[in-house]
Amino acid sequence: MVQKYFGLTCKKFREDKNISQENFALLIDMDRTYYASVEAGKRNISIQNIKKIVDGFGVPLSAFFETMENMKGKN
Amino acid sequence: MVQKYFGLTCKKFREDKNISQENFALLIDMDRTYYASVEAGKRNISIQNIKKIVDGFGVPLSAFFETMENMKGKN
Repeated sequence: MVQKYFGLTCKKFREDKNISQENFALLIDMDRTYYASVEAGKRNISIQNIKKIVDGFGVPLSAFFETMENMKGKN
Repeated sequence: MVQKYFGLTCKKFREDKNISQENFALLIDMDRTYYASVEAGKRNISIQNIKKIVDGFGVPLSAFFETMENMKGKN
């Protein structure tokens, strides 16, 4: 469940930046198929990769998870 | 680096609850040696285990990470 909402939140932040999955993965130096599977909620992602992705969005971890919590509230 | 501060933040929340590592691990149904290594900053912990631990502290993920960010600011 947490994986699913983590992925949806990544998708939201990426779309807000108007960038493709492929270009975002390139930007943060992450394999694009791995990144795609994170957005799809399929990965039990580690804290180091969480930090890498959230740094790519340019927000603190607390802000990312607050957005995720608000998204869950609406689903 | 993120692992180190994640561990220190767990330690802070656990001590605020006045509970031992062993009893906290028991409470959240996690192996106590694994939990000890998380506090020691030695684990690239997954989001499912992060959720399990933070739920045990009874706070949202956003609040946990906000505390972590404040702790980093002071170190």
